[in-house]
Amino acid sequence: MTATPNYPITDAVKHALAVTLRGCDELLLEEQWLKKLAKSAATGVPLRIKLGLDPTAPDIHLGHTVVLNKLRQLQDLGHTVIFLIGDFTSMIGDPSGRNATRPPLTADQIKVNAETYYKQAALILDEDKTEIRYNSEWCDPLGARGMIQLASRYTVARMMERDDFTKRFKGGVPISVHEFLYPLMQGYDSVALKADLELGGTDQKFNLLVGRELQKEYGQEPQCILTMPLLVGLDGVDKMSKSKNNYIGITEAPSEMFGKVMSISDEMMWTWYDLLSFVSIEQIAAFKAEVANGRNPRDIKVLLAQEIIARFHSQAAADEALAAFNHRAKGGVPDDVPNVTVQLPAEGLGLGAILKEAGLVESGAEAGRAIEQGGFKINGEVVKDKGVRLAAGEYLMQVGKRRFARVTLNT
Amino acid sequence: MTATPNYPITDAVKHALAVTLRGCDELLLEEQWLKKLAKSAATGVPLRIKLGLDPTAPDIHLGHTVVLNKLRQLQDLGHTVIFLIGDFTSMIGDPSGRNATRPPLTADQIKVNAETYYKQAALILDEDKTEIRYNSEWCDPLGARGMIQLASRYTVARMMERDDFTKRFKGGVPISVHEFLYPLMQGYDSVALKADLELGGTDQKFNLLVGRELQKEYGQEPQCILTMPLLVGLDGVDKMSKSKNNYIGITEAPSEMFGKVMSISDEMMWTWYDLLSFVSIEQIAAFKAEVANGRNPRDIKVLLAQEIIARFHSQAAADEALAAFNHRAKGGVPDDVPNVTVQLPAEGLGLGAILKEAGLVESGAEAGRAIEQGGFKINGEVVKDKGVRLAAGEYLMQVGKRRFARVTLNT
Repeated sequence: MTATPNYPITDAVKHALAVTLRGCDELLLEEQWLKKLAKSAATGVPLRIKLGLDPTAPDIHLGHTVVLNKLRQLQDLGHTVIFLIGDFTSMIGDPSGRNATRPPLTADQIKVNAETYYKQAALILDEDKTEIRYNSEWCDPLGARGMIQLASRYTVARMMERDDFTKRFKGGVPISVHEFLYPLMQGYDSVALKADLELGGTDQKFNLLVGRELQKEYGQEPQCILTMPLLVGLDGVDKMSKSKNNYIGITEAPSEMFGKVMSISDEMMWTWYDLLSFVSIEQIAAFKAEVANGRNPRDIKVLLAQEIIARFHSQAAADEALAAFNHRAKGGVPDDVPNVTVQLPAEGLGLGAILKEAGLVESGAEAGRAIEQGGFKINGEVVKDKGVRLAAGEYLMQVGKRRFARVTLNT
Repeated sequence: MTATPNYPITDAVKHALAVTLRGCDELLLEEQWLKKLAKSAATGVPLRIKLGLDPTAPDIHLGHTVVLNKLRQLQDLGHTVIFLIGDFTSMIGDPSGRNATRPPLTADQIKVNAETYYKQAALILDEDKTEIRYNSEWCDPLGARGMIQLASRYTVARMMERDDFTKRFKGGVPISVHEFLYPLMQGYDSVALKADLELGGTDQKFNLLVGRELQKEYGQEPQCILTMPLLVGLDGVDKMSKSKNNYIGITEAPSEMFGKVMSISDEMMWTWYDLLSFVSIEQIAAFKAEVANGRNPRDIKVLLAQEIIARFHSQAAADEALAAFNHRAKGGVPDDVPNVTVQLPAEGLGLGAILKEAGLVESGAEAGRAIEQGGFKINGEVVKDKGVRLAAGEYLMQVGKRRFARVTLNT
């Protein structure tokens, strides 16, 4: 193992540590990471940050972006991200052949999935500071012998320390021997990549540590590991997932995204800021101070919604979504609805005639069609009965999506 | 799994079962083996019997021949033996690189060791019914993926049932993950070879069973397993091994072999007959009956010693060793020692003069040299003092190895 000399811990280095820690679950070992940051700052050599991906689920939602955001923050500090596609194990699928729901993927399928995934991830990552790698590059050449040699570097007892293995072993739930090999393969990726840091979800901590330990076995300076919490979904209870339907997909329409972000609680908003926003730590602190001084947190939430839409769509789409949101907030009625007065004769007036008088339609026939097709609303309620007789009073009338009039019926 | 039809259990089949069981520790499953024997007898297709060998210790002793003898007995019934060299794992050595005493072997070293071993084994095996195979033939093509697929066929819990794994895990003695792969590789050899029976020592039972279970996983009719006991060595206590120095090497001189076999207890002789002799089961029963009726078991032991020498040397060597043994049994004195009388004068006679008088030497000088060099014995004891004065009486005198005289000194 190469001994790391002590490089100066400058303010920039301390800031880089703070960026790393923002929103994270755990950084191991913080002291080593600080040294690596200091070394990189002093030598100008970027650190190598690994993210391992299973190329099987290409549609990503905001929950998946938590680690991608962190990677981007680290790229903005000058470091290199390795977007690692775990094609080797994906091509194996469920090796026992018993699990039909996990068929082996072909190289082509994996490539398509990986590209789909990367296309989405590239909305967040800095492509100039991203290496895309496939682990079959070094796993296949291992061969059966290399596999045995790799397996010799880790003990059964250490493997058994993994939570789910402990539980399954004690509970008599079968663990296949190859399940011990997967964390080793994943760890060997870190050796092959000479990773300085590996990111993952909290549930990946064990596997990330295996990489760290294998690097020591292979005489490398061990990687640090950074786990990010799972993003809580729209329900404020469970982690964001498709199956819980509490997610925001990154390809969802801007208006959908906007409404969903606005629906989260004020409290959860701050966590989302930590995990989903690129607004600086200092700015977030300022926002909190403003809210404490009486600013409506809704304004801050709007900014988060706009930031997210701008990232996955565009600034224009974000602005439009805000306008549409404001519009809906006022019941969907434009600001400039004309006021019209219609004089009712003694015998009353048919609905079609009122609409024509109010200038909402060109003809009684057009009015009839609109009413029949459900395209006519009074005070926001669809009215389909052409025979309705309206009494004197004030009505907000709407034909189609855009024609509004505030109609006063006088007798 | 192919269902085995029921073939007739003839007397010959029953005899083959008895030959299999002779001296064995355990046959699993006896019923399945009987069916396989019946099928082979009915179809004329030889059964495939596997012996796996670690090509690291090429000098074999009688302890190693126990399984070879059984293989030969099965060959004599018409079956095929696969002499399997485990070169794949030997080329890996101790994969952690920590154990300097187990360096990886090169392909050349393995070939030399395997040939040395086979040359010795061929003294027992029927070479026409022996296939020599190296397991790298199918292990290398497995690759890293095949290794994972193989590992998926076996559970950690089943692996932990192996005695030494259980003990080490409970005792906190590290087990490396690759140690779980070795029994799987060995089991996969049985799949690759479509073995019907695998032989091994009692200590190999777990590994042999893995082969059986993997064959089922791969849709094959599972092999039966036959474990042979470890041969107890010359001390009658420990298993025969070089480190205990209680062994008979198969390249030892005939006279050494003879003496060592004759040194074992009468009781242990019967076990050795079961494990080391090709004398029929019926003949052994007859010997036992004769001993029960008063025959000296030593005669039977002589026959075993001769059989073993004839196998590893020649019949002539066996005969010669017997003659030499008989000779030594009588103190090494030939049958035809001449009787000589020497008259002592009143002043006595020097030793050299007595030897010359008795015709044992040509001159006093020759007598002197013989005495000085320790080549003169009286009654089996070396006498080096030329000044000794002998009183009247009878003496067995010996010069060198072959000159004897029974000398009567008269006054």
